[in-house]
Amino acid sequence: MFSKETYIQRRQQLKERVGSGLLLFLGNDQAPMNYADNTYSFRQDSTFLYYFGLDTEGLAAVIDIDNDREIIFGNDPTIDDIVWMGTQPPLAEKAERVGVKETQPSLKLADCLKGKKVHYLPPYRGEHQVKLQELLGIAPAAQAEGASIPFIRAVVDMRNHKTEEEVMEIEKAVDISIDMHVAMMRMVRPGIHEAEVRAAVTAIAQQQEGGDISFPVIATTHGQTLHNHGYIHTAQAGDMFLLDAGAEVASHYCGDLSSTCPVSGTFDERQRTIFDICLNAHRTAVAALAPGVPFRDVHIKACTAIAEGMKSIGLMKGDVHEAVEAGAHAMFFPCGLGHMMGLDVHDMENLGEVWVGYNGQPKSTLFGIKSLRLARPLEPGFVFTIEPGIYFIPELIDRWRAEGRFKDFLCYDAIDKFRNLGGLRNEEDYLITANGCRRLGTKYKPMTPEEMAEVRINP
Amino acid sequence: MFSKETYIQRRQQLKERVGSGLLLFLGNDQAPMNYADNTYSFRQDSTFLYYFGLDTEGLAAVIDIDNDREIIFGNDPTIDDIVWMGTQPPLAEKAERVGVKETQPSLKLADCLKGKKVHYLPPYRGEHQVKLQELLGIAPAAQAEGASIPFIRAVVDMRNHKTEEEVMEIEKAVDISIDMHVAMMRMVRPGIHEAEVRAAVTAIAQQQEGGDISFPVIATTHGQTLHNHGYIHTAQAGDMFLLDAGAEVASHYCGDLSSTCPVSGTFDERQRTIFDICLNAHRTAVAALAPGVPFRDVHIKACTAIAEGMKSIGLMKGDVHEAVEAGAHAMFFPCGLGHMMGLDVHDMENLGEVWVGYNGQPKSTLFGIKSLRLARPLEPGFVFTIEPGIYFIPELIDRWRAEGRFKDFLCYDAIDKFRNLGGLRNEEDYLITANGCRRLGTKYKPMTPEEMAEVRINP
Repeated sequence: MFSKETYIQRRQQLKERVGSGLLLFLGNDQAPMNYADNTYSFRQDSTFLYYFGLDTEGLAAVIDIDNDREIIFGNDPTIDDIVWMGTQPPLAEKAERVGVKETQPSLKLADCLKGKKVHYLPPYRGEHQVKLQELLGIAPAAQAEGASIPFIRAVVDMRNHKTEEEVMEIEKAVDISIDMHVAMMRMVRPGIHEAEVRAAVTAIAQQQEGGDISFPVIATTHGQTLHNHGYIHTAQAGDMFLLDAGAEVASHYCGDLSSTCPVSGTFDERQRTIFDICLNAHRTAVAALAPGVPFRDVHIKACTAIAEGMKSIGLMKGDVHEAVEAGAHAMFFPCGLGHMMGLDVHDMENLGEVWVGYNGQPKSTLFGIKSLRLARPLEPGFVFTIEPGIYFIPELIDRWRAEGRFKDFLCYDAIDKFRNLGGLRNEEDYLITANGCRRLGTKYKPMTPEEMAEVRINP
Repeated sequence: MFSKETYIQRRQQLKERVGSGLLLFLGNDQAPMNYADNTYSFRQDSTFLYYFGLDTEGLAAVIDIDNDREIIFGNDPTIDDIVWMGTQPPLAEKAERVGVKETQPSLKLADCLKGKKVHYLPPYRGEHQVKLQELLGIAPAAQAEGASIPFIRAVVDMRNHKTEEEVMEIEKAVDISIDMHVAMMRMVRPGIHEAEVRAAVTAIAQQQEGGDISFPVIATTHGQTLHNHGYIHTAQAGDMFLLDAGAEVASHYCGDLSSTCPVSGTFDERQRTIFDICLNAHRTAVAALAPGVPFRDVHIKACTAIAEGMKSIGLMKGDVHEAVEAGAHAMFFPCGLGHMMGLDVHDMENLGEVWVGYNGQPKSTLFGIKSLRLARPLEPGFVFTIEPGIYFIPELIDRWRAEGRFKDFLCYDAIDKFRNLGGLRNEEDYLITANGCRRLGTKYKPMTPEEMAEVRINP
């Protein structure tokens, strides 16, 4: 938690930006696994955290701009709560820590909203849908549409610009994320199971007080599946091992990194070729980062670098710029180059990528670039990932080939010889500064095959 | 997953028990953390798993008893699903593995239910509440009340009686849970942080393929808080370290064990005294386990053993049986002796403890025994925990003393001298057999201070 002044200032700025009306913030409840009281690790709503800082379940808050009131709603612990969950300060004391003077029992929230113009954010959990229906009488299917655009835009604009104290927290998370990746590089060997790597890197995130993983770990020898959460394979000599994993620190700021390393210690020639094309795309992207540059252009530069690399080894042909414009490179890179990162690993994805990453401009519907989460011109304070990857997805190869897609750009016979190569990705986290960019992390994550081999040999 | 015959037989038996009508099974969806696509580890609904075996999100099923139809509802993967989530068999193929011949797209579920007498189970996630409202037009607040008692009772009766193949799965989970506890006994030292122990034992559960923790790990030097999930303390010499943790195996059957060990290697005299009273209560309870014996009586025997022990060291006085009947022992043991365990760690808690543990009989509302989750006469095939504990909860001591509660049974001045002792618990898992009971686990979890010290010294 930051000092109370941080939260007071944030709320003040939000009030000025929205101007009038009543802003509703629903905190998260415990999320049940298989019955109500068997819960996952509690995760507070990030916008609630950003403006109200309190990291416990069962809370809501209201900012009544017109009447200049800020109220946190929640219940004080009973003796049963203390027996089962431990000693807790009363709600008023917690509220005071974030500069809020007024608290009320949860039951009073409905009264407070009655007859008011209520601005709310789009719900992303069933519990929020049920509450919004109870509180505002809006059916779940109509809730997304009724969410307040001015509220969303004000929150997005504030949270998109990270302050120095926020960057420090993100950097702590990135450092722990680097520890997770170095651990993977040291432990992968033929015979190790994906589940073992997942367990080991999760433990590194969890062994810090208040720490956890920032998203479900991807730890796989089948990197061509972008979000692979199966953990069902045993690594074999000749495989590449892809880890996409990050830590969250106690303040809930996130890190998000990816690494791909050879299970047997060295890439074979084909793997090395593809790895180098990907690394070149990464460097090309980073070289382009600066305030004012649209991230869409950076993405296109990375795509073009990939297409050029693929052409150089005979997997693509024709004009690479035309190929990228048409979307042919998406055979190998069907997703986006990066996304905003902060209190959420895809920052504010619940508020809508079109606001967060596109500043309200429409997104493309073309396969590949439709998955680009960030396109807007970069501004100082933006924190995001750079994560080019190259993937050989047999189902996609077969489907496009059967459909005759991009025949002028894709060399299907040559591609087919790579169909079992899998997938690889390298990902790091960047901050836009006044003049350029800075890679986040006071530690260094090995990036080249030589650096990864060095870490493996000299733990 | 078991063989398809297991699922076919279970559904057949269920149909015969309920007799008529249409049974609705809602599988679980992915549970969002901080936005829709950042999800916790997927956990299927246990009743869905029990009858339909399929362990993926987005499914529902119907058994139309009167027309003898079984249908699984879900959608086949799109090319985007394959790119992001990997290759998956079509739904019809998955359904065939559990002996279900009919599948339909999710959108068809509402039609299938229209105008029918639908039996449903009580919802425990917001997503279920939203779906039940959409499908059946029942508002969230009215859903629990409208759940089908015949459906609940039939499911509870079947799932309460574990078959041999289920016991084998539970025993695998218990064995991994034992590994977690032995790891804790080996690693606790002055200076170790609770978060480190939590991380290490979670990793043991996760490093098996398909494995995870069965409930949030309790790893704490403040064992007097029954469900302590804070992980905020560093262990000091003189502390006791309490671990309550269990593993879930790929089939989702659970283990649940607790151990308490001295951080410095040996208990001090007072800790040892309390530990021995708790261990005696454990042994007293286990000695009483047999088919036909009401678990309530076993609980009372354990409570009485605790009260006798507390009287022997001057913390209680008067007639121990009267004290236990009045509930005075609940100062030290404010919860129940055990609970059913199976696919859920508190098995079927979502269906109602009054059905699972009380066979429809009412529960007490008295502090202490109101938290007893299991009271009914034991039957062969029941699997449950035995987990007596002794806790010194400063807030409870102060409150009861101020209220003058149980002055004839509680020696407050003497109790006050133990107020900072903390809490301890020992927990193991038992199966009722035809003639008695069997402790589950092919491995052995150290139970006495001497056994725990041995493990610590000789890893």
